[in-house]
Amino acid sequence: MVASAEQEHPNKAIGWAARDTSGVLSPFNFSRRETGEKDVAFKVLYCGICHSDFHMVKNEWGSSTYPLVPGHEIVGVVTEVGSKVQNIKVGDKVGVGCMVGSCRSCDSCADHLENYCPKMILTYSAKYYDGTTTYGGYSDIMVADENFIVLIPENLPLDGAAPLLCAGITTYSPLRHFGLDKPGMHVGVVGLGGLGHVAVNTDQNEMQAAMGTMDGIVDTVSAVHPLVPLIGLLKTHGKLVMVGAPEKPLELPVFPLIMGRKIIGGSCIGGMKETQEMINFAAKHNITADIEIIPIDYVNTAMDRLVKADVRYRFVIDIGNTLKASS
Amino acid sequence: MVASAEQEHPNKAIGWAARDTSGVLSPFNFSRRETGEKDVAFKVLYCGICHSDFHMVKNEWGSSTYPLVPGHEIVGVVTEVGSKVQNIKVGDKVGVGCMVGSCRSCDSCADHLENYCPKMILTYSAKYYDGTTTYGGYSDIMVADENFIVLIPENLPLDGAAPLLCAGITTYSPLRHFGLDKPGMHVGVVGLGGLGHVAVNTDQNEMQAAMGTMDGIVDTVSAVHPLVPLIGLLKTHGKLVMVGAPEKPLELPVFPLIMGRKIIGGSCIGGMKETQEMINFAAKHNITADIEIIPIDYVNTAMDRLVKADVRYRFVIDIGNTLKASS
Repeated sequence: MVASAEQEHPNKAIGWAARDTSGVLSPFNFSRRETGEKDVAFKVLYCGICHSDFHMVKNEWGSSTYPLVPGHEIVGVVTEVGSKVQNIKVGDKVGVGCMVGSCRSCDSCADHLENYCPKMILTYSAKYYDGTTTYGGYSDIMVADENFIVLIPENLPLDGAAPLLCAGITTYSPLRHFGLDKPGMHVGVVGLGGLGHVAVNTDQNEMQAAMGTMDGIVDTVSAVHPLVPLIGLLKTHGKLVMVGAPEKPLELPVFPLIMGRKIIGGSCIGGMKETQEMINFAAKHNITADIEIIPIDYVNTAMDRLVKADVRYRFVIDIGNTLKASS
Repeated sequence: MVASAEQEHPNKAIGWAARDTSGVLSPFNFSRRETGEKDVAFKVLYCGICHSDFHMVKNEWGSSTYPLVPGHEIVGVVTEVGSKVQNIKVGDKVGVGCMVGSCRSCDSCADHLENYCPKMILTYSAKYYDGTTTYGGYSDIMVADENFIVLIPENLPLDGAAPLLCAGITTYSPLRHFGLDKPGMHVGVVGLGGLGHVAVNTDQNEMQAAMGTMDGIVDTVSAVHPLVPLIGLLKTHGKLVMVGAPEKPLELPVFPLIMGRKIIGGSCIGGMKETQEMINFAAKHNITADIEIIPIDYVNTAMDRLVKADVRYRFVIDIGNTLKASS
């Protein structure tokens, strides 16, 4: 007998799940595991809606399993910690981003780059170590290994901090890794969505004037788009970093890369150490995302608006006040 | 009155030139400038045939001017030096590669990367400082600014050294720049033509076994080809460096780049300082190109064979013994 999602673990949870490729979300009763000795359990207060959630509820990347509870920009308050948890205590404000596990022994994990571990476990629609399905943050409670928990400093508002756990680290990590965070550098951001909204897009005349002037560009666009103008904006040795994931291949012109020893790189979220570093940096400088707070029963409408880019710039679900066991 | 190519300079020269986009080469009388105070004049002994020569004689890159004397893997013996030439004397063995001038004041030039100078002057089919057309090494004599002359060590055979001036530096420079020259690294080369023939291609089974194992790949292929298998061969953080220039854009899959923080970079020949360094390295380790020596009147046949990849691995024209003023 296979246990239902509601029965397999001891802790009852309520979330909103997609049941099929229509992607329509509706209330879903499931369960969370007991708080293990290295686990942290928390009451979810807010969860951001990432564009990935949209792709995933519709199985556009081919990896979705249903029922699917999305959400990987999750923040809340700790309710219980396991006996071996070292750095987190009940009452702390914490967050979980895109991943909840990794092998912790490969070269990537040793380098604090769990995000590139071949056995990295995604926060939802993945198999956890115990073989059960992972469920995301469109839900009332969460439990995760301490190693994948981020501590959120007191002064950072939880709602505006939620998107930092995916959108924030996705743009922060490549700026650091590709050396685009030095004073005086000219760095552009393409795509003014949830990821790219920290910068301001330029118009055509400004684009023309900016040709050959940029040290780097972070390209957050997840639709097919031309790379030639972006490569043209770069200086010799400039770097174009892709963090959005268009479903189809882009056209890569080779000549402009060669003529300026330019590079196109990819970057995927960030490791846990740098995610904590990014959150601390955001707290120190009072950086949060520009958000629109919504109740959980608005989530399907929000998904429709999201895909039309009708949001400035990130929806955040007020889980704590609007998701009830009775809903 | 516009001076003809034969009359505009005082020193009579004979070369083989293409007259139109047929690309057919035939004898051509022209002239070389007087040896300026910073110039080095030399008798050409050998010149390699680069795949670029084939593109250029047919104007496939749209930048050709006719008559066009190709050749940018030029070696010979110095016959005259200008009064301010410092490091080269009559009788020295020297070479000229892909460029004969640059602005010498921009950031790239200051970094010894004349190859990325926006005002870099190509060895043939370009405008020199004095407004006259540059002619390449399929010719009996050559004159060039000392700054663009490479000294060839005594022990290096001139014929096998000629291709190092383009093919050699084109593969050497990215291995150094992208940090792919460290002991123990796994580096692949794609395309076993004039550029790639220093490495050995693997078969399909070996390709499969090699997935995810390589630190870097130098891609020398100048035809359209798929990148997915090459990106798959790379480890996390692996680097794919393009040095060939396909005429059409390639398909760039973004997901595989992102998932391993991999990069695709371009690289174009190399600066003069590193070209000299590469030649000295080659001399120290007795590295030369595998060549097929041909007489100048075989050059059209050689072009036909080149485009069919029927050469292992580089044609080198024996200019000294076969190109006569009477031909």
